Amino acid sequence: MTTTDLHVVVPAGGSGTRLWPLSRAANPKFLHPLTGTDRSLLQATFDRLVPLCSAANLLVVTGTAHAAGVARQLPGLPERNVLVEPFARDSCAAIALAAAVIHRRAPGAVMASFAADHLITDTAEFAHTVARAVDGARDGYLMTIGITPTRPETGYGYLQCSEPAARSVIQRVLEFKEKPSLDVATRYVESGKYLWNASMFVWKTDVFLAELAARRPDVAEPIARIADAWDTDAQEETLAELWPSVPKVAVEYAVMEPAAEDGKVGTVPGDFGWSDIGDFETVVELLGIDVGGGGKSFATGPGGRAVVVDGEGVVVVPAGNRLVSTLGVSDVIVVDTEDAVLVCGRDRAQDIKRLTEILRERGELDRL
Amino acid sequence: MTTTDLHVVVPAGGSGTRLWPLSRAANPKFLHPLTGTDRSLLQATFDRLVPLCSAANLLVVTGTAHAAGVARQLPGLPERNVLVEPFARDSCAAIALAAAVIHRRAPGAVMASFAADHLITDTAEFAHTVARAVDGARDGYLMTIGITPTRPETGYGYLQCSEPAARSVIQRVLEFKEKPSLDVATRYVESGKYLWNASMFVWKTDVFLAELAARRPDVAEPIARIADAWDTDAQEETLAELWPSVPKVAVEYAVMEPAAEDGKVGTVPGDFGWSDIGDFETVVELLGIDVGGGGKSFATGPGGRAVVVDGEGVVVVPAGNRLVSTLGVSDVIVVDTEDAVLVCGRDRAQDIKRLTEILRERGELDRL
Repeated sequence: MTTTDLHVVVPAGGSGTRLWPLSRAANPKFLHPLTGTDRSLLQATFDRLVPLCSAANLLVVTGTAHAAGVARQLPGLPERNVLVEPFARDSCAAIALAAAVIHRRAPGAVMASFAADHLITDTAEFAHTVARAVDGARDGYLMTIGITPTRPETGYGYLQCSEPAARSVIQRVLEFKEKPSLDVATRYVESGKYLWNASMFVWKTDVFLAELAARRPDVAEPIARIADAWDTDAQEETLAELWPSVPKVAVEYAVMEPAAEDGKVGTVPGDFGWSDIGDFETVVELLGIDVGGGGKSFATGPGGRAVVVDGEGVVVVPAGNRLVSTLGVSDVIVVDTEDAVLVCGRDRAQDIKRLTEILRERGELDRL
Repeated sequence: MTTTDLHVVVPAGGSGTRLWPLSRAANPKFLHPLTGTDRSLLQATFDRLVPLCSAANLLVVTGTAHAAGVARQLPGLPERNVLVEPFARDSCAAIALAAAVIHRRAPGAVMASFAADHLITDTAEFAHTVARAVDGARDGYLMTIGITPTRPETGYGYLQCSEPAARSVIQRVLEFKEKPSLDVATRYVESGKYLWNASMFVWKTDVFLAELAARRPDVAEPIARIADAWDTDAQEETLAELWPSVPKVAVEYAVMEPAAEDGKVGTVPGDFGWSDIGDFETVVELLGIDVGGGGKSFATGPGGRAVVVDGEGVVVVPAGNRLVSTLGVSDVIVVDTEDAVLVCGRDRAQDIKRLTEILRERGELDRL
């Protein structure tokens, strides 16, 4: 199944604050088994990608806090393929560093980038879609894989396509759209011309690096010097000198949006059971089991159990080795972990990020 | 302050199911620091009673599961004053055993009995009330201390007095009343002639034992034989032979109600800030602190904290070493312990006992 000369990058960052207290700064979403098996999202991502590129050609870009976690969860990943950023500089820096390192290791390679914390149920269809995107990349496009929308989601950005999206057919991306209002999202979905942007990219490293150099020399130049020093004795010193100066910017904003305006971005619609497992609603919808009494549960801990009595729409995530009971409450999410418990109204699940900010202000730093 | 020759019995039993999961069969309410200090209810009871009778004259009657807990929490209690029942036979057996043992150790003594798991805020007034009850006991009455009602509570039984209750004045109890409906309770409280029955008793042991022998020889006879063997080599053998045959009956039903009909029961109204700490509402009302955001909290654990955001009437009991957060929920009770979490609607706090029955049916025996 390996696509000849395909290299894959997995940026593993982000703490998943909407999944607090399950996901933590020190133990983020991608390290958790939010997959319906005992594999973490990172491990499931690895399992899905290795057949496409081999472990030798798979790189994970992560932060200092998670390098050890990544290395331990992926014993099959070569050590030199764990790229550790000194600190986060947003997605453009992470992806550019990976592209530049790959370009030096395998000039002219095709490279793809997929997040570490997304769930995909139809692996075969995913592989097929990636193969079509690789075709587009070989033709010189900066390719994306957009997700065929299943609802007017307001939490994602959208890709505006030139034609109504047809399965596995490559087409141009006219514009990257910010997260829309519900009205706008509904219009997008009804038109059939919009896909969700899941930050899945496929391109030849030389095409991407040239585009970056032209549009953002302030990113491209330090990254090029760092990549030159990578795998050498000068790696650490060069990182120390240059990394702090790398601008913090998203790759969409720095490269993809302006490139789309110039007709250089293509896409293939993806319809392979994708989810970003962004909140507890999604976790339990996709992975929860009915526990009776009006409740659903998703247990990730060793001995967590849920008992729901006289409730409706109760979501329980017993991620500690505890029994979580609810009695006579409805439409709440209850998350239990080793050192923190959250009880959240289901209509407030999007505000958990705000709660974590309140906790930060109150000095609960060891619980974030 | 010691009242000459007063002996006091503290029945320490009952698991406090309405305080689950804080109170457990293995770690019941009376062993918990539900006092506003780090003293348990049992310890606070001991502290309150020792000045009245001295530790030498204070007996705790408890079950096999809690004998060690009682002994450790009360290092000042003589070992021979921990009376361990082989298994629970209801309050008449426990109190009769204590009365019979005291009667053999100190013939003709006055004995009082107070539960191990009640909270009293005005200790001086309590001592004063007990002294008045002792006067009544010396006059040959089976005395009770009834609690001056502060609301039309439907969760307690009532004592019907011969006259409107006046502070510290002894009067006759006409009848023991079962837990009333709200209408009836309201009528009781408005009449001024009713007191709450808190199962506080004061009597001469010979008076009580004679009354018991006359009314319930099936209890009195085995208890007399057991008490004869108490403190001797035959204690265990006699318990094994006779204890299983002791009828399970409440002392109110077996002795006090029929004795009241014969005019032998007296009472002194007590108004000393009494609470039976029967449910989480009461715990937090009496001992809770405002945590802002619409919530109150009562922490009994070493590091438990509560953060309430956008709620009304949220009650948090963080009894584990955890951070408990609520976001956008109202009128709920959240109880966190080492191995179980409960989220309960405030209007369902009385049904926690039912929840524990459901958990028992589901085999969650190690969490009860």
